[in-house]
Amino acid sequence: MSESNGAEQVLKNYAGETPGVIGNLRRLLYTGALAGTGKLVILPVDQGVEHGPARSFAPNPEGYDPAYHASVAVEAGCNAYAAPIGFIESIAHEYAGRLPLILKVNNSDSLGTPAQPQSALTSAVKDAVRLGCNAIGFTIYPGSGSRNEQYEQIRDLISEAREAGLPTVIWSYPRGGKLSKDGETALDVSAYAAHLACQLGAHIVKVKPPTAHVEQDEARKFYDNIPRDTLADRVRHVVQAAFNGKRIVIFSGGPAKGTDAVLEELRQLAKGGANGTIMGRNAFQRPRKEGVALLKSAIQIFGGK
Amino acid sequence: MSESNGAEQVLKNYAGETPGVIGNLRRLLYTGALAGTGKLVILPVDQGVEHGPARSFAPNPEGYDPAYHASVAVEAGCNAYAAPIGFIESIAHEYAGRLPLILKVNNSDSLGTPAQPQSALTSAVKDAVRLGCNAIGFTIYPGSGSRNEQYEQIRDLISEAREAGLPTVIWSYPRGGKLSKDGETALDVSAYAAHLACQLGAHIVKVKPPTAHVEQDEARKFYDNIPRDTLADRVRHVVQAAFNGKRIVIFSGGPAKGTDAVLEELRQLAKGGANGTIMGRNAFQRPRKEGVALLKSAIQIFGGK
Amino acid sequence: MSESNGAEQVLKNYAGETPGVIGNLRRLLYTGALAGTGKLVILPVDQGVEHGPARSFAPNPEGYDPAYHASVAVEAGCNAYAAPIGFIESIAHEYAGRLPLILKVNNSDSLGTPAQPQSALTSAVKDAVRLGCNAIGFTIYPGSGSRNEQYEQIRDLISEAREAGLPTVIWSYPRGGKLSKDGETALDVSAYAAHLACQLGAHIVKVKPPTAHVEQDEARKFYDNIPRDTLADRVRHVVQAAFNGKRIVIFSGGPAKGTDAVLEELRQLAKGGANGTIMGRNAFQRPRKEGVALLKSAIQIFGGK
Amino acid sequence: MSESNGAEQVLKNYAGETPGVIGNLRRLLYTGALAGTGKLVILPVDQGVEHGPARSFAPNPEGYDPAYHASVAVEAGCNAYAAPIGFIESIAHEYAGRLPLILKVNNSDSLGTPAQPQSALTSAVKDAVRLGCNAIGFTIYPGSGSRNEQYEQIRDLISEAREAGLPTVIWSYPRGGKLSKDGETALDVSAYAAHLACQLGAHIVKVKPPTAHVEQDEARKFYDNIPRDTLADRVRHVVQAAFNGKRIVIFSGGPAKGTDAVLEELRQLAKGGANGTIMGRNAFQRPRKEGVALLKSAIQIFGGK
Amino acid sequence: MSESNGAEQVLKNYAGETPGVIGNLRRLLYTGALAGTGKLVILPVDQGVEHGPARSFAPNPEGYDPAYHASVAVEAGCNAYAAPIGFIESIAHEYAGRLPLILKVNNSDSLGTPAQPQSALTSAVKDAVRLGCNAIGFTIYPGSGSRNEQYEQIRDLISEAREAGLPTVIWSYPRGGKLSKDGETALDVSAYAAHLACQLGAHIVKVKPPTAHVEQDEARKFYDNIPRDTLADRVRHVVQAAFNGKRIVIFSGGPAKGTDAVLEELRQLAKGGANGTIMGRNAFQRPRKEGVALLKSAIQIFGGK
Repeated sequence: MSESNGAEQVLKNYAGETPGVIGNLRRLLYTGALAGTGKLVILPVDQGVEHGPARSFAPNPEGYDPAYHASVAVEAGCNAYAAPIGFIESIAHEYAGRLPLILKVNNSDSLGTPAQPQSALTSAVKDAVRLGCNAIGFTIYPGSGSRNEQYEQIRDLISEAREAGLPTVIWSYPRGGKLSKDGETALDVSAYAAHLACQLGAHIVKVKPPTAHVEQDEARKFYDNIPRDTLADRVRHVVQAAFNGKRIVIFSGGPAKGTDAVLEELRQLAKGGANGTIMGRNAFQRPRKEGVALLKSAIQIFGGK
Repeated sequence: MSESNGAEQVLKNYAGETPGVIGNLRRLLYTGALAGTGKLVILPVDQGVEHGPARSFAPNPEGYDPAYHASVAVEAGCNAYAAPIGFIESIAHEYAGRLPLILKVNNSDSLGTPAQPQSALTSAVKDAVRLGCNAIGFTIYPGSGSRNEQYEQIRDLISEAREAGLPTVIWSYPRGGKLSKDGETALDVSAYAAHLACQLGAHIVKVKPPTAHVEQDEARKFYDNIPRDTLADRVRHVVQAAFNGKRIVIFSGGPAKGTDAVLEELRQLAKGGANGTIMGRNAFQRPRKEGVALLKSAIQIFGGK
Repeated sequence: MSESNGAEQVLKNYAGETPGVIGNLRRLLYTGALAGTGKLVILPVDQGVEHGPARSFAPNPEGYDPAYHASVAVEAGCNAYAAPIGFIESIAHEYAGRLPLILKVNNSDSLGTPAQPQSALTSAVKDAVRLGCNAIGFTIYPGSGSRNEQYEQIRDLISEAREAGLPTVIWSYPRGGKLSKDGETALDVSAYAAHLACQLGAHIVKVKPPTAHVEQDEARKFYDNIPRDTLADRVRHVVQAAFNGKRIVIFSGGPAKGTDAVLEELRQLAKGGANGTIMGRNAFQRPRKEGVALLKSAIQIFGGK
Repeated sequence: MSESNGAEQVLKNYAGETPGVIGNLRRLLYTGALAGTGKLVILPVDQGVEHGPARSFAPNPEGYDPAYHASVAVEAGCNAYAAPIGFIESIAHEYAGRLPLILKVNNSDSLGTPAQPQSALTSAVKDAVRLGCNAIGFTIYPGSGSRNEQYEQIRDLISEAREAGLPTVIWSYPRGGKLSKDGETALDVSAYAAHLACQLGAHIVKVKPPTAHVEQDEARKFYDNIPRDTLADRVRHVVQAAFNGKRIVIFSGGPAKGTDAVLEELRQLAKGGANGTIMGRNAFQRPRKEGVALLKSAIQIFGGK
Repeated sequence: MSESNGAEQVLKNYAGETPGVIGNLRRLLYTGALAGTGKLVILPVDQGVEHGPARSFAPNPEGYDPAYHASVAVEAGCNAYAAPIGFIESIAHEYAGRLPLILKVNNSDSLGTPAQPQSALTSAVKDAVRLGCNAIGFTIYPGSGSRNEQYEQIRDLISEAREAGLPTVIWSYPRGGKLSKDGETALDVSAYAAHLACQLGAHIVKVKPPTAHVEQDEARKFYDNIPRDTLADRVRHVVQAAFNGKRIVIFSGGPAKGTDAVLEELRQLAKGGANGTIMGRNAFQRPRKEGVALLKSAIQIFGGK
């Protein structure tokens, strides 16, 4: 492995971490078709919990079976597969050590009605260890009235994960409080969300692609000189907010859409300096062949080919 | 024991579990008249807590005595008996090792008025161990405003139970929040409830027989191509939502009713691919002889005879 | 000690318990004038906390002194003395080993205004052990909006007490929520309260003498064939609800009243199959001589003399 | 030390306690000018937290310095000095072992706005041990809607303090809920407050001097025969409510006032059987010489001189 | 090191502390251009969390990079650098042992909407130890309805930090409850805030420069004889409230402003007896050269040059 390759450049930014955590970050960065590039394409499947099984898997019923997704991730050459404990438990004995697994330790469903936006803790670091996972994932909702509880949960989880040699991926999704619906993906709010996740100690940050909207009045004037016309421009600002690019930032793809739209978005992400993408519905709601092909296209885009 | 029998086929889906947990699942699957078939008929008696003693046992006063139920379960050839700690403590010294016992570790009564639908923790994993039980049972109410607290409780209990070699049965009963009364047993909601229980790590899922109603607007279009005219059709969809049948799903029978209605419902459940039934009031509110006979009929139906 | 005496018959129903817990139950059943009969007359003095010192002790100022009550309990031949930690601490060094002590580990006062009916935890199992007590006592308020918290407290306390060899007495007082004032002592609610306490794992259940009122609409029809004209009839139903008499059920006497009324109530309790009484104000608000005499009368009634 | 002196008479009422706790109570009772009498004059300085620094110390600016108060307590011959952790930490290395220190482990300030009257935990038993203190102090607000939380805190603290050989002083200040402002110092409420503190396990109880007002309707008739015209009468009733005088009860002096008024109040307290006084503002808001003189007068009054 | 220098004079006020804590206080006092003077100029960078990345760093984009700030602190000769865990983790391996690091263990952002003013716990004492920090920092909001929770958090953190040999810095920012916006920096409230932090056990207290406003009606008359015309006067009162100057008190500089205004404020702070300043935005929102120069000016002012 060359010290000058992309993966090692990325890892230098984690120099203060334990070898255990760095080791698992390295495993993610050296798996699949993007091995060594410092880029990541990850397959996440928590839609069954988030939206329900039929909304998630009826379009491609193979997806009801937990074995399907891990097999797709390997075939496509993804760096990792992320899911709630039920799906991970069903396949871990066959995939641990072969495909990096990210245990999503909190989740939210569409039936529940908590007073504030907040996911439920559904698994623990010791589950991740037991199941041979390489990282944990956690969603925060900046803006929520229960922000404190969430930040304190992630504080404890990151610490516990570190003691087990596991890095932490934070899904940072602004939601609740004073935020308008548009504000959730506004540029200022997205950059803030990425910065918060980094300041909370995330090793990898996942945010949504930002729009050109600026939500906070107090922030408006500071955006006069920050380019935000193209998605690439906006991604560049989010990456800057993530410790000037010293933390890995990956972007989700959002709702299922046409292949051309997906590819154009991916190109903008790559151009703006994103470290990769985490693509769910666009992959698993297509028939297997098409889903694998789309993941491979994402890999090519981030691989610079 | 043959690797090709139904029980072993079912157990293959739990390949990643510990031998302790698999062992207790196997004990459930190899007890009673359905031993080895992979099917389960379980007698649950938590009605005294849920509805009060007179509403539960006045129709057949033998049921006031905790010794009655365990004896019926053995006579009928059930796979297991499930009850709150008081009832289990009263009989465990006589039945542990003979009849698999499922300790229902949370319960709700009709007097209490918690702000959100939520059962109270009434016993613990260490009680299950002390009393020689083979599994724990836990009720979640997806839809409740206290969903997070419930999911975190079951997260911890499953983990603790696993450390004691015990599998977990989740009673998944949608309730509260935005759900209409009809919505609680709607097909989409039932499938979602089963999927959630699986994703939370349940080894066995208990849901109610679903109706043809679809509750969630966002889910409606996805049901256009999912058959739901017969109960068997709907059960098939719920089983699919339970990891494509890779998790044991059993159905309750609901309120006491006529014998013919019960038997027809059981036939539909079996036809739809359910792994069995958990039948309470219909069994213990009949005179002993009739209750035993009904349980035996259920066993015959799931045994394919 | 004869296996056929009343105490040993009662203890058979606790066959699954640890020898430590059975041993302390046996100490209660073999102390005082009712030793060996399986019946219990207990002196409880938590009125100072519940209603304040003047309302409790001004009628008989000797009662301000904690030494008074233990001495009365011994003189009258009671099975045990129950009180909050302050009173117990004041006399335990003189009475432990001589008079069975029940530490009431939660209490409620008339000044406090918790949002839901709920007693405060005022002492712990380790206090009971330190003070040489033979059991702990705990009040639940079925009906309360904080039911879950209370049931979870008693779950933990019973378990901890068991580890210390101590049985648990549950004061089961329906209160709060949808219950009317009359409903708190309704027959259906009282039977439910006794059943709940048993299902939660109580070794001894204390309820109030029930009235003939039926509170819950859903329960009404089930009471058509349950006799409830006399207190003895109603007590019989409550005892049935307590696992068909397999758990010890004792009844409180309620507010101070005339001696004849007290004695008549006691006779009805005994006739209905109650295991005894726990009589406070009627004993300690009379002058010592009269209070002792009344307790002795209760003992005679339950002793069948 | 003579067994017939006042201090030993007082200590007999704590016969069931550990030698460690009795030892520290003895240290309090054998320090200063009242050594051996069984009486206590204590200097408390938590006004800086309760009312703010200027309101507390501007009248006598020497009081801003934590060294001032401990030095005054020694000079005047007090039994002990009570303060929050900040003040204690500043002087403990110089006074521990010389002047008994009471660490006030909870405190309330005038800026904070908790939903219910409740002090914040500001230090712990282990701080008391580290700083060489001889007791902990804790405020309860009977009447508060958060009564349960407060009682459970003091339950745990008393237990932990005992394990460290430390007695506990409870400041029992009725407040909140249904209580009127006058009710906070009403005779019935004050007696109730003292009784509650004793029942919770306090070794020393601190209450305010009661007025002749009776607050609770249910209690009124019981006060028909209880003398309450003079403060001495009322103190006598409060002492009776404190386990018939078997627990140490001391009274605070309230707001700063003229010397004659202070002395008259102290004489009534002594006459009514109080075990002493805990005098703050009246001592430290006077110039040093006057403050010391007033404390000495209090000592003379309780010393019976 | 001379016992008569400023740093040793300051340390005498912490005589009761552990050598571990004193050692780390000494490291802060003997680092940078003010070594040995007993004065402190600290660079804090938590604005990215508090206000968002663009509002904080767009004026001087070098600030997006966590490496920038530590390097500036060293170049300017600061005593220490304070930041949230994300920023500290990024540079600790390069600066621990060279530049004293203060881990800010709680933080608040502008998106979140907790019901009461309260920062979220974002890191722990064990993180401070792992990262080679020399102190922890914590924000309290006196006035908040969640005061109790905050005070209990800091109670536990101070204790845990002590066990790790780390002193604690409290940011004491009155906010919430009955306080007007002006009241947050009123003289009486600022003095109260400083006193509270000291009483809670802070080793170093950080408050904002107070105005001449008096907020609390009850406090007004006590300010009749307290000079408050100049900032120096007001600082002197705050220092007095901080245990008569026996605890280190440093002042923040507030919003970015012109250099002259900053310097004049610093001179007043020094004249009033402040132990130093903690200057963030005024330093890092200027170009590097100007920011360093301003920090050096602050150092000169507190160094008495």
